[in-house]
Order: sequence, then structure tokens, then C-alpha cells
Amino acid sequence: MKLIKPDILKQVVKVRPANSYKGTFGRIVTIGGNLNYGGAIIMTTSAAVHAGAGLVTCACNSANLTALHTIVPEAMFLDYKNRPSLLNAVQSADVIVIGPGLGNDSLASDLLLQVLSQITGKQQLIIDGSALTILSQQENWPKLLPQQTILTPHQMEWQRLSGIKIADQNDLEQNLHVQQQTGATIVLKKNGTVIYHPDQTTAKLTIGGPYMATGGMGDTLAGIIAAFLGQFKNSPTKLVIEAAVYCHSAVAQQLAENNYVVLPTSIIAALPQFMQKVVNS
Amino acid sequence: MKLIKPDILKQVVKVRPANSYKGTFGRIVTIGGNLNYGGAIIMTTSAAVHAGAGLVTCACNSANLTALHTIVPEAMFLDYKNRPSLLNAVQSADVIVIGPGLGNDSLASDLLLQVLSQITGKQQLIIDGSALTILSQQENWPKLLPQQTILTPHQMEWQRLSGIKIADQNDLEQNLHVQQQTGATIVLKKNGTVIYHPDQTTAKLTIGGPYMATGGMGDTLAGIIAAFLGQFKNSPTKLVIEAAVYCHSAVAQQLAENNYVVLPTSIIAALPQFMQKVVNS
Amino acid sequence: MKLIKPDILKQVVKVRPANSYKGTFGRIVTIGGNLNYGGAIIMTTSAAVHAGAGLVTCACNSANLTALHTIVPEAMFLDYKNRPSLLNAVQSADVIVIGPGLGNDSLASDLLLQVLSQITGKQQLIIDGSALTILSQQENWPKLLPQQTILTPHQMEWQRLSGIKIADQNDLEQNLHVQQQTGATIVLKKNGTVIYHPDQTTAKLTIGGPYMATGGMGDTLAGIIAAFLGQFKNSPTKLVIEAAVYCHSAVAQQLAENNYVVLPTSIIAALPQFMQKVVNS
Amino acid sequence: MKLIKPDILKQVVKVRPANSYKGTFGRIVTIGGNLNYGGAIIMTTSAAVHAGAGLVTCACNSANLTALHTIVPEAMFLDYKNRPSLLNAVQSADVIVIGPGLGNDSLASDLLLQVLSQITGKQQLIIDGSALTILSQQENWPKLLPQQTILTPHQMEWQRLSGIKIADQNDLEQNLHVQQQTGATIVLKKNGTVIYHPDQTTAKLTIGGPYMATGGMGDTLAGIIAAFLGQFKNSPTKLVIEAAVYCHSAVAQQLAENNYVVLPTSIIAALPQFMQKVVNS
Repeated sequence: MKLIKPDILKQVVKVRPANSYKGTFGRIVTIGGNLNYGGAIIMTTSAAVHAGAGLVTCACNSANLTALHTIVPEAMFLDYKNRPSLLNAVQSADVIVIGPGLGNDSLASDLLLQVLSQITGKQQLIIDGSALTILSQQENWPKLLPQQTILTPHQMEWQRLSGIKIADQNDLEQNLHVQQQTGATIVLKKNGTVIYHPDQTTAKLTIGGPYMATGGMGDTLAGIIAAFLGQFKNSPTKLVIEAAVYCHSAVAQQLAENNYVVLPTSIIAALPQFMQKVVNS
Repeated sequence: MKLIKPDILKQVVKVRPANSYKGTFGRIVTIGGNLNYGGAIIMTTSAAVHAGAGLVTCACNSANLTALHTIVPEAMFLDYKNRPSLLNAVQSADVIVIGPGLGNDSLASDLLLQVLSQITGKQQLIIDGSALTILSQQENWPKLLPQQTILTPHQMEWQRLSGIKIADQNDLEQNLHVQQQTGATIVLKKNGTVIYHPDQTTAKLTIGGPYMATGGMGDTLAGIIAAFLGQFKNSPTKLVIEAAVYCHSAVAQQLAENNYVVLPTSIIAALPQFMQKVVNS
Repeated sequence: MKLIKPDILKQVVKVRPANSYKGTFGRIVTIGGNLNYGGAIIMTTSAAVHAGAGLVTCACNSANLTALHTIVPEAMFLDYKNRPSLLNAVQSADVIVIGPGLGNDSLASDLLLQVLSQITGKQQLIIDGSALTILSQQENWPKLLPQQTILTPHQMEWQRLSGIKIADQNDLEQNLHVQQQTGATIVLKKNGTVIYHPDQTTAKLTIGGPYMATGGMGDTLAGIIAAFLGQFKNSPTKLVIEAAVYCHSAVAQQLAENNYVVLPTSIIAALPQFMQKVVNS
Repeated sequence: MKLIKPDILKQVVKVRPANSYKGTFGRIVTIGGNLNYGGAIIMTTSAAVHAGAGLVTCACNSANLTALHTIVPEAMFLDYKNRPSLLNAVQSADVIVIGPGLGNDSLASDLLLQVLSQITGKQQLIIDGSALTILSQQENWPKLLPQQTILTPHQMEWQRLSGIKIADQNDLEQNLHVQQQTGATIVLKKNGTVIYHPDQTTAKLTIGGPYMATGGMGDTLAGIIAAFLGQFKNSPTKLVIEAAVYCHSAVAQQLAENNYVVLPTSIIAALPQFMQKVVNS
């Protein structure tokens, strides 16, 4: 299995073209954040903004409007109960993230199913967090996934989706067998995250550590992946996803030299400087 | 065409007179920020405060009150649906910004038309963001503009206003032809922003870059222009606008040495130090 | 007239007694912050907390609860419309500040008059901002002031209170004539602020500058005075007030070396370090 | 009596095991924060997150949702009036903190009594702030405490609980006599905090100082204790509590070199770096 190496960053994160504008760097819609888990989708959104996405709209419970604007005024807000507005935003998005803090009530299921049914093959969809649990409850879920889907389960979520017990999840063959049915990219998050690409190749992350074992870490990763997909359209999607996953842990690893626990908000704040170091190096 | 040079800053940003008070540095009213785009008007407002405006009032949807006060407690709040209060604030303002995050529903149109009809020749008006789209939909819009108006369209907004296709917007003559009908200053924002002054002279920005291609960048510029107009009343308006536009990109350029994407909130935070460096240099 | 000298800080800001607790450093209640001017009372409150007050409660419009807690979670909240709770808090306070962002509607007047009628001679009362305008409208207002009152008018507010035109406010005699009727301390804020003490002595500030001419500056001063009064009970009140006024401008002056405009929130953030430098020096 | 020494930190705060996940570092539920004292529970929650707790849920008045998410988006929210959700969260928690900003109305009593009746011997419960006052009003309160309870009273709260006057609280025997009836750990907070362990041994803190005499200090300590209990399960509980109490004051002491008053939010922000220095030392 390929190990993701540090040069993945320089392969993907490049000097921006001079003649560009906001749209060049992607329109992202993030969907999640119910009444209890607003922080999750806010971190996803803020990560996307700080990782360089051009325009980011966050669709969430209206209770989260103020925290969203306070933390990241650069992002736009949508009430996710306003279905016409949401579908409109989804239609014009390059990348959609659904799941962080979404919860798993009937509203959440409705939102996921609507998004799944509406996305076109030109758009990229990241399914994360509670949306993965909802997905696992749908009959024959692999058939519901649009063409360019990325699933970012942690081990328990992958167990729910694949039926493979956590203890057996180091078995590449078993994981690939399920992945093959989906056509999707699977980012299986664990100590030593493994990415299963649609072409059945795999790539393993060798950095990161237990300082990342804190709430919100996955939400932040989802936002970074979205921003990278939105910006780096000229690089192969495989590399872009690997670079995003690597970037997330590389920032954390750097912060961990001086921090016992690395908070997601600290990673987010460090993204613009970290990415520029890549370009300058 | 004149290229704006770094010394524009020293020509405009000067040591403050000792015997001065808040009113000396301008009363600004910012109008925008509907239920979805609150962050936009908050960035405009915060930029105005950080760029040295004396007193700033933000008129927006009441949903944005808390994010506004949290980000910039120095600013005052008005519910933009409270028409008497808003008109009162507008009347006593030196500079009015309308548009960032305003949206383009009927409330937005109403607000724009009321402001347009009420401003006196002594006041300065900056029309930005969605207010430009609304303006472009008004019959014979150039005749609606009060004496001292500044329009800050990006290329698509200028296309809507002028009818000139983006591909043709490098043609000075065409742009000047439309501008002549307005009497306004046009700040045409693009890679190499060009300012069209009411006296038909033009000035081109040669700094800035693609690290600025992110949501909220224009909202921030509008706030800086407002603050400069409010403060630097003894300098010719032409120079003040050029200095504001230059300042915005100069701060961004400086931050871009260490940041892959330069967030509007980072520019805002850097304004007081950047401006003092100009004075100290 | 005495000029306030830098050593005023060392005379007042001293190493804290080892055997002390929160109550030792004062219970402060700040009253203000209506629906439009929430930022004002939040800055007063945050200044009091950062300047070392032991326990601070902010009584304001409930719309400001979240911005208050976000900016300064160390402070407690009261809805100023909850009269029994407010009066209860006022009764157990050492220092009360009323006025920042209070507005001047009938609720505001009611609050001021109730507070004036309820304060005891052991408590200290700072009247600032819009409460000064309300006060000036009361018949024979000097007779309404409790024993230990401090008024902090800027020049227009002092004109409203005293009837002395701004142009004549450098005339000590005229100011002292009005002050004599009040028994209060008057902090007349201007370029070269002058403090009129109840014993008819005066003290003049010789630091500060036009970088302080921005919204919220006076609100912040009120909070610093309150914190100093609450903490430094063993120093003569005259010196404590002089030290607070000096501290506010000294922090601003220091920040102004690198900041074109010094924002109130920047002063607030710098207070704990500035005060420790005094003790260490 | 044992004096807590600096090496307590290295005994407890250790390099994290590589093969770990969020659950490894504890599920914490914090309960408090009514309409007036939201900042208190937010500081407890934020302290727990910054001190390394794996997953933290804050149950409080819904008015505090936005301030919570803005200050610490890493935490989850629960409306403490939603009893089924709250009890569900409590059941799956490793450590529960109840009290910071809870108030002492009937809702507060109800919440405390429900939590007391529901906790199992495997869980750890920290009772702080107003919950201690409520507890003291219950008949035969020592019998209500579950097995692994930690009380964190300041001197007045301990007087209410134990009946021992503040002047007599240096008498170890008297304190131990009451403590013996409870089976709980008592962290008696004062200048020279003393910890009374269930095995009747005691430990005294010799660091900290009057720069900590400010609102929110105790709320922050409760969060640190919770995080340490959640993370450091392999160390004896006695040492973990001592380390948490020491950590809180050690961070404050370090900040006090440059800060006249040490704000709780400053301690919280410094935790990740301070803890890493322990590991690196």
C-alpha cells in the first residue's frame, strides 16, 4: 500500500493563477449543525474558508447563525429547513459536505436523501459524521451514492456501513470489497488513516497522533477536503484528497510539538500559514 | 493611465490633529446584512472601525446584532427595518455604505431607493455588493445617483450595470462612456482594479493578487473606503479613494507573504498597525 | 492645577494582599446597553474585569446576553428590565456604573432615577454616557446625586449639564462653580482631561491623543474607574480616580506607537499586562 | 499534611497512548449556566476541552447556546430542560460536573437531585458552585452523594455544607470529621487550598495567589479536574485530582508574572501548551 509522503503537499498546493477570482477556488456548501451540534458544522465551514475555498455557504439550524458569523464572518448562512434555498445552493455548488453535527432525526435523513438524489456527476460530495450513520440505515446504500462521493467514516461508522467489525478493519481486502460496490472514495479515519480510491488503489497516512483524539477533529478534516477539491481542480482527485488528509494531520503534528491536545480551532487558524509554507518551501 | 504608487498612502494617511474628537473622523452608517449574509456587513463595519472611522453604526437584520457586537463592540446597531431610526442615522452621517450582504429582495430595493432619494450633496455614498445588482435593475439608474457616489462593482456587477461584457471591460473608452452618465466614481474591482474618477481620469492598482479571491474581500474594501472618506476630509476625494483601495491590497499583499489565502478578517485586524507604519515611515 | 504624573500608577496599583478573595477586589454592577448600543456596556464590563475587579455583573437589554458572555464570560448577566434582580444587585455592589449605551428613553430615565434614589453613601456611583444627558434634563439635578458620585462627561455632555458652552470649558472657575453644587467628582473628558474633585482641587491629564478619538473610548474608561475604585479601597479616592484616568490613556499611548487608531478592545486586552508592569517597575 | 509538589504533574500528565481515540480521553458532561450565569458553565466546558477531554457536552439554559459554540465550538450543547436528553448524556458520561452558574432555583435543585440519584459508582461526579449551596440545604446531604464524588467548595460554601465557620476551617480535624460522613473528596478552595481525600489523607497546595481572586476561577478549576479524571484513568484518582488542582494554579502563577489579574479565559487558553511543557520537560 502506498504511504502518503510529505511531497504530496507540494504536488497539490500550488501558487494560485494570477487571473482568478472567487469562483476559481470553488463554491462549497456545508450541511449539518442541528440544535445540539452547531459547533461541528461551524468548524467544517471555517476549515473550508481557512483552507482557501472561494465561497462557502453553511446550511444549518437557524440557532447556529450567530456563532457561525462570529467565528467565520466570511461564510454565508442558510437555514437548512428552507428547502428551496438549500437546493438552489446545492445546485450551484462545486463541492457539498453533508453530515457534521447533522444528527440523525427525520429532518437529517430527508436532507441527506434529497442531496443524494440531486447531485450531478460534475459535483463532489463528502459524506461525514452523522450522515454516515443515516446512510448505513438505508437499504442498499452503496447504490444511492452519486458518482464523485467521498465517505469519511471513523471506525465505528465504517462498521455500521460495511458490516466489518473494527477488529477486522485492517484487512484491506474486506474493505475493498465493500468499497467496490460504492464507487466512492473511502477515507477510513483511524490511527493510520487509509484512503480507498475508486480505482481500488489505497494510500496510508503515517503522520498524526493521539493529540488529535478530541471532538471536532473529523469535522475539520471534512472542511479541508472540501476546500482542496474546490481549489485544486487541475490535480487528480486522488492526489487532492490525499493532500487534504495529509495537510490536516501535518498541521496537527506541528502544533503538537507545543500543545498536549491539538484543538480543531487551532488547526483551522494555522491553515493559511501552513499552506503558504508549502508554496514557499 | 495613472498607476497608483505606494506614496499615495503617505499623501493621505497623516498624523491626526491633536485637537480632535470622534466626530472629526467621520460618522459612518453601513447598511446591509440580511438573514443570510450578515457576515458581509459586519466585515464592512469592522473594517471601517479598524481603519479609524470615528463613529460607526451598522444597520442590518436584527438577527445579526449579536455577531456584530461580538466582533466589533465599538460599532452601534440599528435594525434596518426600523425606517425612522435608519433615516435619522443616514441624515447625520458623513459617509453611507449600502449593499454588503443586503440581498436583492423588495426590502433591499426599498432601502436602496430611500437612501438614494435622501442623501444630500454633502454626504458621500458607497454602493457595493447586492445594491449594485438592484441598482442595475432600475430604469435609467445613472440618474438616480446623488452627487458624491462611489460604485464598487466587480466585473459581473459592472456588466449588469453598464452592459459591457466582462471580456470588453479592459476597454477604458467604453467604461468611461458609461461612467460619464453617472457622475460617480467607479471602482472596477478585478485583477488590476481600475478607478474611474468623476473628472474622467483613471487610476490603476498594480498590487494585490489571487490570495484575495475569497468571500468578504469586497465588503472589507467598502469599509476601508468609508473610513478613509470620513477621516481624511482635507485630502482630495480622488486621492482618498485611491489610498483606500491601495491600502486594502497592500495589507493583503503583506499578509500574503505568510498566508496562502488572506482572509478579510485578517486584513481588518492588521489595519491599525499598517496605517501607523505609514505615518512612522 | 496639578498635572497627573506617571508615578500616580505606582501610588495606587499595588501588589495584592495574599490573604484576599474575590470580594476583596470589589463587586461592580454596570448598567446600560439597550437594543442599539450593547457594545458600549460590554466594553465597560470587560474593562472592569480586565482591570482587576473581583466580581462584575452587567445589567442590560437581554438582546446583549450572548455578546456579553462571548466577549467576557467572566461577567454575570442581568436583564435590566428585571427590576427586583437589578435593585438586589445594586444593593450589594461596591461600585455602580450607569450610562454606557443606556439610551435616553423612559426606561433609561426610570433606571437612572431608581439607582440614584437607592444608592447609599458607602457605595460609589459612576454616571456616564447617555445617563448624563438624562441627568441634565432633571430639575435641579445636582441635588439628586448621592454622596460618592463621579460624573464622566465629554464636553457636549458637560455643556448640557452645566450650561457652560464648550468654548468656555477651559475656565476652571466656571466649572468649579457648578461642581460645587454637586459634591461630585467631575471627570471632564477632552484633549487634556481635567478632574474636578469634591474638595475643589483639580488635576489635569497630560497624556493621550487623537488616536483615542473613536467610539467606545469613554465606555472603557468608565469600566477602568469602576475596577480601580473596587480594588484600591485603601488609597484615597482622589488618587484612585486619577490613576484610572491616567492608566486608560497610558495604555492607549503605548499602543499608539504601533496603531494608527487605538481601539477600546485593544486597550482592554492590554490592561492586565500593563498593570503588572507598574507593579514590577 | 502532604504538600503538593511540582512533580505531581509529571506523575499524571503523560504522553498519550498511540492507539487511542476520543473515547479514550473521557466523555464529560457539564451542567449549569442558567439565564444569568452562562459564562460560568462555558468556562468549565472550555477548560475541559483545552485540558484534553475527549468529548464534552454542555447542558445549560438554551440562552447560552451561541456563546458556548462561539467560545468553544468543540463542545456539544444540550438544553438542560430537555430531561430525557440530559439523563441520556449523563448515563454515558465518564465524568459529570454540576453547578457552575446553575443558580439555586427549583429547576437547579431538581437537576442536582436527579443527577445524584442517577449516577453509578463507575462514574465520577464533581459538585461545584451553586450546586453546593443547594446540596447544603438538603437534609442529611452527605448520604446523598454517590461513591465517587468530588466537592469543590470555597470557604463560604464549605461553611454552609459543614457548619464549620470560616475562621475554624484551618482545623483539619473538624473538616475531616465532616468529610468522613461523605466518603467524598473535598477540595476546599482558599489561599492554600486543601484536598481531603476519601481515605482521610490530605494534601495542600502551596502555589497560586491573589491574582486568581476573580470571577470564574472556580468554574475553570472544575473543568480541569473533569478533564484530568476523564483522561488519566490509569493514575490513582487522588493524584489526578491533586494534579488538576496544581495545574490550575501553576498556569495562573506563570501568567501572573506578566498579568496583574489572571483571567480564567487566559488560563484556559494556556492549558494545551502548559501541559505539553510538562511532557517535554
